Amino acid sequence: MTSTDDFLKANESYAASFGDKGSLAIPPARKLVIITCMDARIDPAAHLGLKEGDAHVIRNAGGVAADAIRSIVISQRLLETHEIAVFHHTGCGMLLFQTQQLRDLVKNAAPDDSEVARHVDAIHFHEFSNLEEAVQRDVLFLKSHPLVLKETTITGWIYEVETGRIRQII
Amino acid sequence: MTSTDDFLKANESYAASFGDKGSLAIPPARKLVIITCMDARIDPAAHLGLKEGDAHVIRNAGGVAADAIRSIVISQRLLETHEIAVFHHTGCGMLLFQTQQLRDLVKNAAPDDSEVARHVDAIHFHEFSNLEEAVQRDVLFLKSHPLVLKETTITGWIYEVETGRIRQII
Repeated sequence: MTSTDDFLKANESYAASFGDKGSLAIPPARKLVIITCMDARIDPAAHLGLKEGDAHVIRNAGGVAADAIRSIVISQRLLETHEIAVFHHTGCGMLLFQTQQLRDLVKNAAPDDSEVARHVDAIHFHEFSNLEEAVQRDVLFLKSHPLVLKETTITGWIYEVETGRIRQII
Repeated sequence: MTSTDDFLKANESYAASFGDKGSLAIPPARKLVIITCMDARIDPAAHLGLKEGDAHVIRNAGGVAADAIRSIVISQRLLETHEIAVFHHTGCGMLLFQTQQLRDLVKNAAPDDSEVARHVDAIHFHEFSNLEEAVQRDVLFLKSHPLVLKETTITGWIYEVETGRIRQII
């Protein structure tokens, strides 16, 4: 079982009402970058009112800024964005484990595989223990990062999975 | 000017019709991970018919699998996903530059800053020159990666920004 048939069926509807979106420009119209978590409960376009063409959307486990620098450099230097909004969210899985625990879990599942151990020991999973602090830390990280343009507007937010509401932290 | 007021206004509407989404579980209901580009023209939930709770969505510049391993390990080992669909798209900015060009552009904008040079020279930007090949390469990369579970179903797709349509490559 794969999602192939589901994808094709849903996409048929989307393409049928695509309208004039085929003429959108590459640079985001709102010169905006969103960084948020990969969490399945989050639909950033829906909860922020973004439509196709508006903003770059970077998503990874936790909405971790340190994991987004490559993408941000491309966004800012080649496609002229100058605002970044970082979102973390309540109930995030990143609050529930520590890097060493996950490394151990992966290695214990393949105890004789040195390649697995080598790869997983090289990864820091960027978990966090306090949501507000993690937002503040990510915003400060971006503000002080040598590759993020100095004139960038950077804000930090929390999305509440329980209510669908957002609140600004910094 | 920031997007703060726009975010809050749009979010008010979203939260008002949030319904019972506050009770969704953390693990994706469809045990599915989507990897796709940060491109502003792409709304993966819309063009694939995903609703909140269905799938992890990882997005970065290009939809590059090598940049998603940390997130995939968390998704698979802690939240039990076992299908990955990788999407690249027509008209991608990653087809338009080479790493050395972008490094030079960044360094030329701050010619006396050795920190900028040090940071940008450490980044490979993972550009690609052929779309179909890039999809195939990313799928093979994931299939052979020591940290991706062997039983994972992995498919590769192209999204057409001109039409809104998807097509499966592998």
